[in-house]
Amino acid sequence: MNILFTSVGRRSYLVQYFKETLGDSGEVHVANSSSVSPAFLVADKSVVTPLIYDSEYISFLLEYCKSNHIDAVISLFDIDLPILAKNKERFEEIGTTVIVSDYETIEICNDKWKTFCYLKEKGIDIPVTFISLDDAISSLHNGCVSYPVMVKPRWGMGSIAVFEAENEEELRIFYAKTMRNIQNTYLKYESAVDIEKSILIQEKLKGQEYGLDVIDDLNCNYVTTIAKMKYAMRSGETDCAVTVDKPELKRLGEKLSCVMHHRANLDVDVFVVEDKCYVLEMNARFGGGYPFSHMAGVNLPLAIVKWLNNESVEKSVLTERVNIMGQKDIQMVRLQIEPQMNIGKILDADEAERQFLYFEKFLSPTLLERGIDIKSYAQKICSHGAILSCKNGIENPMGLLGMYVNDKDAYTAYLSFLSVDPNFRGLHVGKEMMKKAEKLALENGMRNFKLEVRKSNINGIAFYKYMGYEVIEEATKDSYYMWKELKEN
Amino acid sequence: MNILFTSVGRRSYLVQYFKETLGDSGEVHVANSSSVSPAFLVADKSVVTPLIYDSEYISFLLEYCKSNHIDAVISLFDIDLPILAKNKERFEEIGTTVIVSDYETIEICNDKWKTFCYLKEKGIDIPVTFISLDDAISSLHNGCVSYPVMVKPRWGMGSIAVFEAENEEELRIFYAKTMRNIQNTYLKYESAVDIEKSILIQEKLKGQEYGLDVIDDLNCNYVTTIAKMKYAMRSGETDCAVTVDKPELKRLGEKLSCVMHHRANLDVDVFVVEDKCYVLEMNARFGGGYPFSHMAGVNLPLAIVKWLNNESVEKSVLTERVNIMGQKDIQMVRLQIEPQMNIGKILDADEAERQFLYFEKFLSPTLLERGIDIKSYAQKICSHGAILSCKNGIENPMGLLGMYVNDKDAYTAYLSFLSVDPNFRGLHVGKEMMKKAEKLALENGMRNFKLEVRKSNINGIAFYKYMGYEVIEEATKDSYYMWKELKEN
Repeated sequence: MNILFTSVGRRSYLVQYFKETLGDSGEVHVANSSSVSPAFLVADKSVVTPLIYDSEYISFLLEYCKSNHIDAVISLFDIDLPILAKNKERFEEIGTTVIVSDYETIEICNDKWKTFCYLKEKGIDIPVTFISLDDAISSLHNGCVSYPVMVKPRWGMGSIAVFEAENEEELRIFYAKTMRNIQNTYLKYESAVDIEKSILIQEKLKGQEYGLDVIDDLNCNYVTTIAKMKYAMRSGETDCAVTVDKPELKRLGEKLSCVMHHRANLDVDVFVVEDKCYVLEMNARFGGGYPFSHMAGVNLPLAIVKWLNNESVEKSVLTERVNIMGQKDIQMVRLQIEPQMNIGKILDADEAERQFLYFEKFLSPTLLERGIDIKSYAQKICSHGAILSCKNGIENPMGLLGMYVNDKDAYTAYLSFLSVDPNFRGLHVGKEMMKKAEKLALENGMRNFKLEVRKSNINGIAFYKYMGYEVIEEATKDSYYMWKELKEN
Repeated sequence: MNILFTSVGRRSYLVQYFKETLGDSGEVHVANSSSVSPAFLVADKSVVTPLIYDSEYISFLLEYCKSNHIDAVISLFDIDLPILAKNKERFEEIGTTVIVSDYETIEICNDKWKTFCYLKEKGIDIPVTFISLDDAISSLHNGCVSYPVMVKPRWGMGSIAVFEAENEEELRIFYAKTMRNIQNTYLKYESAVDIEKSILIQEKLKGQEYGLDVIDDLNCNYVTTIAKMKYAMRSGETDCAVTVDKPELKRLGEKLSCVMHHRANLDVDVFVVEDKCYVLEMNARFGGGYPFSHMAGVNLPLAIVKWLNNESVEKSVLTERVNIMGQKDIQMVRLQIEPQMNIGKILDADEAERQFLYFEKFLSPTLLERGIDIKSYAQKICSHGAILSCKNGIENPMGLLGMYVNDKDAYTAYLSFLSVDPNFRGLHVGKEMMKKAEKLALENGMRNFKLEVRKSNINGIAFYKYMGYEVIEEATKDSYYMWKELKEN
């Protein structure tokens, strides 16, 4: 049995758990939109996917599952879940089971306003929440709730962009700031549904925080609930926790399973204030608190594999020992892989000028030394050619390429500019940019690619030879022309 | 050679590095005010210390160093550094070297206003910083700086309590909020020096962040600088980084060493904007970025041990390979040790009442079932006895004890109430509270300790027997009196 984790992020320990479960009987594959993930080092096989929002995302995954004989897909990221849920049947058709809750269940989890309304309707305690700033302020005025209150994105995750307002002035400011934050981050995709109702104001509870793993089988039948007292948090994830024996939390878990009808794991944050258990947040997937259950003897990966094989799961597989305290320690791993490269076109001449100014200093001689006016150069290449920029996962420009594709007589593309920031050399930035440039040339009807290189630039000549170019003639007394015939794939 | 890390926190990897360096020739000890640290599992020996602010802190460490033959002390926490620097000679007297920079150097690092003034005076680039809200606002008005600006505690650490203000309204509100935050956290200790000047407003730079390890030997002579490009951050610590070859950063490191005169490691955050390198922050200790240097072949622990032994350090020991990318992965560890216990007296009758109400429900029968009025009970025991509360590191009440110490005839203390939250059973909460209670009884002139226990409470009787109590007589038909003679120590 082969299992694929999508949006695996940093959860290398889950890969490890499934590898231990499968042993020699199957492989664990991981997929992520960035390869900068420790999980890539642990998995049997890994793949960098298009972004979740990309129209090719699902077809990419389907293709991958087909050619790698993936039996089951598990996603670890909230944004990924609804897209997989919607496309579950397409995976079924190729024999791949997506272990994901129904779309409606995921929506109730991801949309924190729906979480509030739905759980309230079902009689489950949840902090008082407002979707309208005016409603919140009038309730604060008449004393129904009191400061501090939390201001957070309705479709947010964990503690990202959450503010604590201690008075009305702060509340108004944080509300406006959160609105701007949403529009500047990927949260805008989710919030586009209803931007005016994309911020929640929620009472802040003072109590002890617990985490639950509410476990259903793959047919949404309740199995058990593991409760952990959170001892320390870090970046919104549980860093240190201890399994506890608190019957009221088990009862809450069973009730949640009953109203949520999820599959496998439902990760729940709970605040216990005096004797009441308030649900703070739910995620229909493995959460950052699962390893604490695993450490206490629970083996959900094994149960999932058995369920997939239609085998029965003994009670002991999902039974925890209590008072087991765990902590997440840091372990250094070396990433052998290339960092993420996003190669895109620059279409705006001003932006092109800025980029040429930044990258030309790495050339020898520089454009300025050659007496080239960068503004008009940028405009010219923008109009008659193409400019490719290569950035890494944190949007640092790593390389810049300028080319012409307007030779409709000889169908020869011409490389005018290629510069890689020395900080990023050795990462194949130049190679990947050239490959993209050649593809683009073909798409523009070009059949050959030509470039000029200084004779003294030994490394450059070697690089272009490696890329399939050959020296065809002297360009000047100091430089050669190199040339390559382009082939479709 | 034995080495002690104080305020070791989560840095288990440093313990590991030093253990690898020392091999069988010495031990690595760790000290922390909380035992909830993965470093405690890795170290050869560990000890929970008083808080750094506690008057007994240094004498505790001196005693520990003496009895454990500690040759060198290294601290990993900013607040700890100046206290150790001030007391360096007292450690020297007992033969222990504290590897710490001079007090003045530490002050320049810890006090971010001093960092700004000092580096500016020395001609090193640093973001424009204001200590007065009015100055900041007028500079923003006249365009010398522009929004967004960062609002942060002058004595803060990392990204704790830092706000980004995008306009004047936000700036004023965040300034007020930061002032309140400082007064509500441990930052108030540092900020007490000058509370009106305890907040900084700093321009926000947009550029690439780098981390430096600027390495001096133990006599403050410059050795080398390791530069790393930060690829991802997490909780204010470097999560993913790659070593780079950037001569301007090496030059900056050398200049910083020259003006700072630090010892061993100076951890520096740098923003590179176009061609300028701005120093953002400095810490006169091992920082969260050191493991990336270590992964790239640098071995500062080995160099430190050699320097302590007056051996020479070959250049290769502190030479990095560039383009080595590392990431911090998560590894689960089980904490075998007891969580931190803070046992303190409750002096306020209202607070006592609240605590009795919380803890009495774990008793059988409860006080309420026995018809006891909890309010007057709390008042009585507050006046004539003592109430001990046991909390863990995150301030959860774990146990409550009430006792009388007013029997001046028979000098017999009387245990009136002992309840441990079932979530925390098995952690020796009861045992530690009883030990504290007995100590308190002795301090109040008592010579014996007496208590009543139900005959059916087999576990309770066994527990008190384990604590040295014996059954002396029947109290009621359902209960015994148990008794113990108290001894000094």
